[in-house]
Amino acid sequence: MAPSSAASELVSGIAFDGEGLVPAIAQQHDTGEVLMMAWMNKDAVAETLQTGRVCYWSRSRRALWRKGETSGQVQRLIELRVDCDNDTLLLLVDQTGVACHTGRRSCFFTAFRNGARTVIADVEISPGELYGP
Amino acid sequence: MAPSSAASELVSGIAFDGEGLVPAIAQQHDTGEVLMMAWMNKDAVAETLQTGRVCYWSRSRRALWRKGETSGQVQRLIELRVDCDNDTLLLLVDQTGVACHTGRRSCFFTAFRNGARTVIADVEISPGELYGP
Repeated sequence: MAPSSAASELVSGIAFDGEGLVPAIAQQHDTGEVLMMAWMNKDAVAETLQTGRVCYWSRSRRALWRKGETSGQVQRLIELRVDCDNDTLLLLVDQTGVACHTGRRSCFFTAFRNGARTVIADVEISPGELYGP
Repeated sequence: MAPSSAASELVSGIAFDGEGLVPAIAQQHDTGEVLMMAWMNKDAVAETLQTGRVCYWSRSRRALWRKGETSGQVQRLIELRVDCDNDTLLLLVDQTGVACHTGRRSCFFTAFRNGARTVIADVEISPGELYGP
């Protein structure tokens, strides 16, 4: 998909790292919950701006990762913001269901409390239900 | 400062990258505002857990960066969380004043709206006031 010229201009202002990537934080737009952090390349940012559905870059699969493609747990983009150094993105999203592959709403479900790792969120949907048997 | 054994154990579970760093997102604990993203190494995480004041690793200065040391705009740690891959931290903090070196509350003050970069937050404290003449 060829990016629109407006999207191209916005993307060209982003300071991608040596591998062509930028960290992107996804935050639920209304509750403020931080859902996850993943990476984007130029194509992922451009596609996200054009389609309004969040697309990351999977570093392990080395491919565009259309969030929710398998699980149905998509993220609709409400607004994209960039930080003062232009090297980190904040995505305000509307998350369908859960963001985490473990079936929890947020990937940040482990807190360091009283010197120990503590799981602070329940599984809402089983991974089997999300990804099939 | 030698880290306590509890802090050491927590730190050892974190998946630092090839450069020994992990991204850390700072979020205001009560409002949910995402303030900034920076990097931590092992020493920065251990010191933050021990002192309760957030310390990052400055990639440009290649040194520990005790947030607010010059400006007074410190971050008190409320809780440290780690994501499902153990490779990103979420710091719930209480931010004194502003997080951004531009004098804005959050570093994410630029939004992509209607195809254009739009500044969406005012400067609250001038950089001159923060860092001196």
